[in-house]
Formats: sequence, C-alpha cells, structure tokens
Amino acid sequence: MESGEAARSNGEQQADLYIMKLGKDVLRLFRTMERLDTPMDEAKAASKILDRASQEMLLKACGDCVETCFDRYETQANQCSFGRSGTCCRNCHLGPCRITPKAQKGICGATADTMAARNFLREVASGTSAHSDHGRHLVLKLKKVSKGEAEGYAIKDENALRRIAAKYGVITEGRDKNEIASELADVFINEFSEQEGYLKTLELAPKKRKAIWEAKGIKPHGIDRMVVESLHRTSVGVDHDYRNILKHAFATSLSNGWGGSRIASQVSDILFGTPTPLKSEVNLGVLKKETVNIIVHGHEPAISELLTAVVADPEIIAYAKAAGAEGITLAGICCTANEILMRHGVPIAGNFLQQELAIITGAVEMMCVDVQCVFPSLPDVASKYHTHIITTSDIAKMLGADHVSLEHTESPLQSAKSLVRRAIDNYKNRDESKIQIPTDKKPLVAGFSVEAIRHMLGGRWRATFRPLNDAIMQNRIFGIVGMAGCNNTKQKSDE
Amino acid sequence: MESGEAARSNGEQQADLYIMKLGKDVLRLFRTMERLDTPMDEAKAASKILDRASQEMLLKACGDCVETCFDRYETQANQCSFGRSGTCCRNCHLGPCRITPKAQKGICGATADTMAARNFLREVASGTSAHSDHGRHLVLKLKKVSKGEAEGYAIKDENALRRIAAKYGVITEGRDKNEIASELADVFINEFSEQEGYLKTLELAPKKRKAIWEAKGIKPHGIDRMVVESLHRTSVGVDHDYRNILKHAFATSLSNGWGGSRIASQVSDILFGTPTPLKSEVNLGVLKKETVNIIVHGHEPAISELLTAVVADPEIIAYAKAAGAEGITLAGICCTANEILMRHGVPIAGNFLQQELAIITGAVEMMCVDVQCVFPSLPDVASKYHTHIITTSDIAKMLGADHVSLEHTESPLQSAKSLVRRAIDNYKNRDESKIQIPTDKKPLVAGFSVEAIRHMLGGRWRATFRPLNDAIMQNRIFGIVGMAGCNNTKQKSDE
Repeated sequence: MESGEAARSNGEQQADLYIMKLGKDVLRLFRTMERLDTPMDEAKAASKILDRASQEMLLKACGDCVETCFDRYETQANQCSFGRSGTCCRNCHLGPCRITPKAQKGICGATADTMAARNFLREVASGTSAHSDHGRHLVLKLKKVSKGEAEGYAIKDENALRRIAAKYGVITEGRDKNEIASELADVFINEFSEQEGYLKTLELAPKKRKAIWEAKGIKPHGIDRMVVESLHRTSVGVDHDYRNILKHAFATSLSNGWGGSRIASQVSDILFGTPTPLKSEVNLGVLKKETVNIIVHGHEPAISELLTAVVADPEIIAYAKAAGAEGITLAGICCTANEILMRHGVPIAGNFLQQELAIITGAVEMMCVDVQCVFPSLPDVASKYHTHIITTSDIAKMLGADHVSLEHTESPLQSAKSLVRRAIDNYKNRDESKIQIPTDKKPLVAGFSVEAIRHMLGGRWRATFRPLNDAIMQNRIFGIVGMAGCNNTKQKSDE
Repeated sequence: MESGEAARSNGEQQADLYIMKLGKDVLRLFRTMERLDTPMDEAKAASKILDRASQEMLLKACGDCVETCFDRYETQANQCSFGRSGTCCRNCHLGPCRITPKAQKGICGATADTMAARNFLREVASGTSAHSDHGRHLVLKLKKVSKGEAEGYAIKDENALRRIAAKYGVITEGRDKNEIASELADVFINEFSEQEGYLKTLELAPKKRKAIWEAKGIKPHGIDRMVVESLHRTSVGVDHDYRNILKHAFATSLSNGWGGSRIASQVSDILFGTPTPLKSEVNLGVLKKETVNIIVHGHEPAISELLTAVVADPEIIAYAKAAGAEGITLAGICCTANEILMRHGVPIAGNFLQQELAIITGAVEMMCVDVQCVFPSLPDVASKYHTHIITTSDIAKMLGADHVSLEHTESPLQSAKSLVRRAIDNYKNRDESKIQIPTDKKPLVAGFSVEAIRHMLGGRWRATFRPLNDAIMQNRIFGIVGMAGCNNTKQKSDE
C-alpha cells in the first residue's frame, strides 16, 4: 500500500513539475510577446538590420520564442534623456542629481558642464581600462613565455620581437629571444605602472605630433595611474573646471591609444605572428550543417589561438568524424574573431549584434567567450537550443554559463582540447528541427598589417610606404579612409 | 562735440551696465527664491541641521541671497529612483538602460543584479581611487623628501619612520633616515604598481583576518591594477555574474582600506608627526572678528601643513598687525582640518555641509582648498562677500577660483607665504555690515593615534593595549564604538 501510494505520489509530483515547467514556458512566451511593440515580421526585421542572414535569424528567433537585443531595445527605447546628455550625476551619495529647468546645479553646485565633462572622463577611463587591461594580459603572458612558463604559447614572430625591442632601446644584438622578450616585457609592464615619468610608447609617434602633446600638456604618465586619477578627479568635490577635466580625458585617451592598445598590438604580433594578407569568409553562412561548429567570441587572442591549434589536431578531427560530423568549423565573433582571422584565416560568423543570432541557427555546439562585448543573454538564448556557453576568463563570468578557467590552469592546451572534445560530444544533441543556417556569406581579404603593406610596396629588402606616399602627393590617390567602430541597436544595423 | 558725445555715450554706457548688473542681481534673487519651496525661516533651518551656528548662517544666507547646498537639495529632492537603486546602466552606448516592469533586462541582457553589482563596484573603485591617490601623493612626497627635493617638508617623526620601515622588512640599523625613507617609499610605490603579487601592507593584519581573505580569494594585487580591472570588468560585455563582481569589489575595497588609506596614514605620521592628544575647538565660532581668517579645506595635509607653519611666522604676524588685525586665525574644514587639528591643534571651523556657511560669516579672507569634498559652489558664495577662493592642486580646479599650484612650484613655502600675505591684504576689503560670526563653538580633545593610546596605557618603555584588552575581557568595558563618515543633505544634519 505504502509503496503504491508513494508511486502515485511520485507520478503526481512529476505531473506537477511538468505543468509548472509548461506554465513557465507559456508565461515566458507571453512576457516576451508582451514586451514587443509588434511581433517580428519581414518588414520589421528589414528595418532593424540590413544583412539578410540576420533578418532570417530575427524571424526564426521570434518563431523559437527567443528574445534578442533587438527586442530588448524596444523595451528600452524610451531612454533617459539625462543619461544620454550626460547631465545626470551619480558620483556621490548626495545625489543622484539632474540638471532641470528648476535645478541648474547639483547639490554640491556642479553645473551641467562639470557633470558632462566628468561623465565623459569616466567613459574615457573605462575604455582605457578595458583596452589596456587586455594589453596587460598579453604583456604578462609574454613575460611568462620568456621564462618558459606558458604552455601552449611561444614567440612566433622573432623578427617582430627584435624589430619592436629595438624601437624601445632594448639591445637585441647577440641576445637570445627569451632574454630580449623578458626585457621588453619589463619595459611594457612599466608602461602600466609608471608613476611620474611619461609613456615610452609615445616616442614612436611622429615629431610634429609629439610637439603638440607637449605643448598642450597632455602627455600621459603610466596607464594605470591615469585611470585612477580619472576616477579621483571625478569624485565628489575634486575637479570642477570642465576644461581641466577634459584635458585629463585627452591625456588618458592617449595613454590608451598610444599606450595600452599599441602595446597590445605589438605583443600580439610577437606571440601570434604579424598578419599577412589572406582570404576568408564572413557572415552566419560560414557555419556548416555537417560539421561541429565552435564559435569564439570576445576580445583576446590568447584563448582563441589555443582553440585554433586544437581544431587542426588530426586526433581531434578524427574524434569529430567518429561522432558523425564531417569535421570541425571554428568561427569567430567580435575582436577575438579578427585576431584569428588575420593570422589564420578563421572565418567570421558575425559581429557584436549577431552574437545571439549565431546561436539561433541551432547549429552551434559551443560558444567560448573571453572578455568584452559578450552579452549576458547568451545562456538564455542557448537554453532554447543545445549550445554550451563557456566562459574562460576569471574576470568575466555569467550566470547560466559553464566556467572553464583557461588562464589559471596548469595545462591550457589540455583544457582547450577537452573543451573541443566536449563540443564534439554535444554534436549528437542537436535538434534537427531547430537548425536553420542562413546561406549568406561573403569572401574577404584580411591581414593588412603595417609590415605587410610595407612589404607589398617595397619587397623584403626595401620595405617602404614610398609608392603610396608618392601617389598621395601626386594626387593620384585622393586620401585614405579609416573605418573603425561597431554597430548599435539605435541605428539600422550595418547600413 | 565729438568728445562730448563720447563722454555722454560713456556715461550712458555705464548706466546701461549698472542697470544690467542690477537686473541680473534681481533676476538671480527671484530665481533663487523661485527654486526654494518655502523661504528659509527658523523652523525650516532647524529642520535641516541640528547645530545652532549653522542654523544662524542658513538664515543669514537667505537674507544675503546666497544659495547653499540645503537650497539645492530641495530642487533635487525628487531624486531618480533608478539611480538610487542602482538599476540604471550607462556603462555603454547601447543604453542608458533601466530596469522597469516592462524591461526586466538591459539591451545587452544585463539583469538588475548585474547592473546594481556593476554600479557598486564602480563606486568602490572611485572611492579607492580617491583615497589611494591621496596616499600616492604622500608617498611620492616622501620619496622627494628622501632626496632632499621637497622644500618646506621634512621627516618630522624619525621614530615613526624606523618603526614603520621595520614592519615592511626595510633594514633600519645603522642607516641614515633618508636612505630608509627612500627604500620605504619604493616599497610603498610598489603597492600601487604591483601587477601579479599581493599587497605587502596586508601582512600587517592579524593572522585570523588574513586567513579569511586567503580563503575567500579576495587578497588584492597592486591598488592601481585593482581599480583598472574594476572598470574593465564593469564595461560592456565583461563580468556579468554579480557574485564575481562583488568579490572583486571586496578585494578592491581591501586594496583601499588595507592599502592606500593605511599607507597614507603611515606616511603622514612620518612626514608630519604621529599625533598625540591635544585640546582645540570646533564650530564656526572659532573664526574671529578681529583676526585675518584663513580656512583650509579638502583632504590632504601637504598644503595645510605649509600654511600652519607660515601663520606662525613672526614676520607674517607682524604683517597682519600692520594691516589692522589682531593676528591670524587658521581654521580647517573636512579632512584637511583633521590632519592639522590632530598634529597642531588648529581648530575646526566646520564639516562638509558647513563649507559654504563659513564663507557666509562674511569674515573669511581666504579659503585654500586642495582635493575632495570641495563644493564647486564656493566661488559663487564667495562672490557675495570679499573671500578669495584658492585652488592649490593641479588635479582640482574650479571656475571662478584662483589657481595657485603649490605642487608644481619651485618654492612651495614662498608660495604659501605670498598666499597668506594676500589673505592679509584682503582684510581691508571686509564689508562690516555683512559680518556675522556665530558664537557657538565647543572644546575638544583630538590626536588619539594608536601610538598615543599605547603610550598612555603603558608608558614609554612598555607601550601596550594590555589594560584596555584586560578591561574588555573582564567585561568592565563592554565594547568600543568606531564612528566614521560624513553628513548628507538627505538627513537632518549632525543629528
């Protein structure tokens, strides 16, 4: 009797759980729908994003009841005008204060000019922190490599090492590459930690430019000090003259552009090789139905470089074939993608606003993310499919994702291998009915590093910009356009 | 004819200017009044602040048509609930985003938990930056003193230097104080710039406490790196797990409390002397009608120490007497005040919310400010009286104030002297009809440094906490209360 009752009650419990789960799903569907002004249709998708592959995925997302950043933008469309204009101050607990017709000053007396300048400096400090911290990680990695302590990493481009070391006055003649790398890493570490001196990397700039920085008094000290001083100056009751605040913003941005970012590029070339032109492809169509699809996403090359090596390992390819796949497709999103595109030709699956759409194809076994531009919504999106979301950096975790620290592990290469094996194991969990990979993709040529361009224009022995400079001076080339930046849900994407 | 016309037109111009000025003043009066819900009266003043001297000055401010932070609080009283609760995110340009019933996530997918944790970490990073940057300035000053490069400064407390150096493992036996100071300064500088190691100052903590930090994984690296990583982690798409974010907030706050702040206290003792108990007075009543009144305000002792020395100079006192004053009264506001109170007994004129009220007495010839907690409204308030507002730190300027850099001058002592002379020269510009100094002031005893308490409990040769510890263990003393913090217009002040 008792066991029969227990069995019935177990069955009832399971039914209850099932109904609860169903109820939650229905609720979720309603809430998703409720939050959208109008459901997604072709016209609406076309108004959000120019790219056809993305439009296709937006429609699929709606059918699959998956919320994307484009949906969330609609719920946030009525954005705070104070926040947008920078006339809101939350820098101390007298506030928050806002500039209104009635309140022309914050409680401390800060004007709109002071508030906007302070907010701007904090944005500059955040950007500098993010870019430069990435550079710091690479520099510390270079130091470890020089001591033989970084399994899976090596000095891939000794020419780059010697070329760059010489620029910083490090003696290279007759010295071992590890010795040079160690000294150069120390020089770079000092760019972060310098207290009263100026950044050495500034010296790489043209004379005229340096004279301007000198005259304006905006030569930066060590990167870290610049950031800390930015936060100090924007704290309650410190710097109030918007001109003085903006001057520090210029200096801090220099510590990023001519400091942290420049250092990151140089160390990347040393550790992973200076890029040379190569062909590849871009857009969601690079994912393949017949292969295990792994996406790397974020900003740092360290982890994606490991994965690039692993997916080419014959043992791993055999493992994928044994799982019924034709092989492995590694593709990238955001800057991590660029790093392995320009060095290995790894295709790009998408940009910042396509990170959710890639998962919505239903054909991604694993997405490995590091730092920056990674949406915390990814585990939510992945929960509708079979995709594993893996965070790899200890300073960037997500609720709902699995964390596999590739920084603080004894053997990063083994960890990367077991991650790829796990992705392959996940291949069998695909739901065929949910797979829809857009066919759109475009060919591209990437990898035009400064060194590659100089080589193309002058050859190995006389690498130069001369023909390009001549053409500009003779007005045969009218100018050069630099395009940089990313997309935003505020505008129609990629238009 | 022409010259007559010119004269008339000059006169007319002057009349126009006068009317314009008058019009502006009237307009300002109306706007000030318009912004207040009700004009200030005794009952209202008493509802704002407990202290009678401050109430008196609030009433005077209303009569003098001067706006204070208490008035501005009323215009800002309807504070943004998103900002207050931390559920507003301005960390990237997808936003600003807010959590509402309709929008449960930011555009990137960040939840309320992620947003609030991020905002909290940025507050911790800002506080750490402000406190620790103050410590850095002192450490760099100590380094300069050790090289004989800081005119007007010296190692005042060699015992403190030797005691502290020994704690950090710096050899003191048979070494010159400058040698020790130089090496100790290097140790301290490394606390800011350290990349992968942990703060040495943590080692001063009790064993049990250190074990907790170790177990929780919150031992901080170099202070500057902690701050930069805080901004990196809270940038778009980096750290989203609120537990991971808060863990870094704890570590960063340790880098401040056990790092920057602790270092600042120790270096202050070395450069300016370890405080011992002494008597002084506090409140606006410390200002005197018959003396030249100079107020120092901000957070750093470096500049106020110089001024303390200068106002005791017989030559300067004679100069003040020649100007018709009975002498000079130096008084302080905020932490700068505490620094010279506990070392020299310099009286405190007021706290954070009294900084404007001190000027409203009409009897302040000069207010010298450095960094932190200085209202940008001070020049506005001063414009109604004869007070000169002087900014002295290059990282903290104000529109409407005079800037006299006491950091980057060849002779800080001479600059401080000429500042005091200028204050004396300003004595004659007082408007007697506008002077009203409250009589309220209270006696106080300050200067209870750890060293002083140990000395009081055990004498010179057996300095100890033993009698205190015994009394607590025997339950004769129930406990010790630590009170720290500042006031806020949100609450009735000083209640």
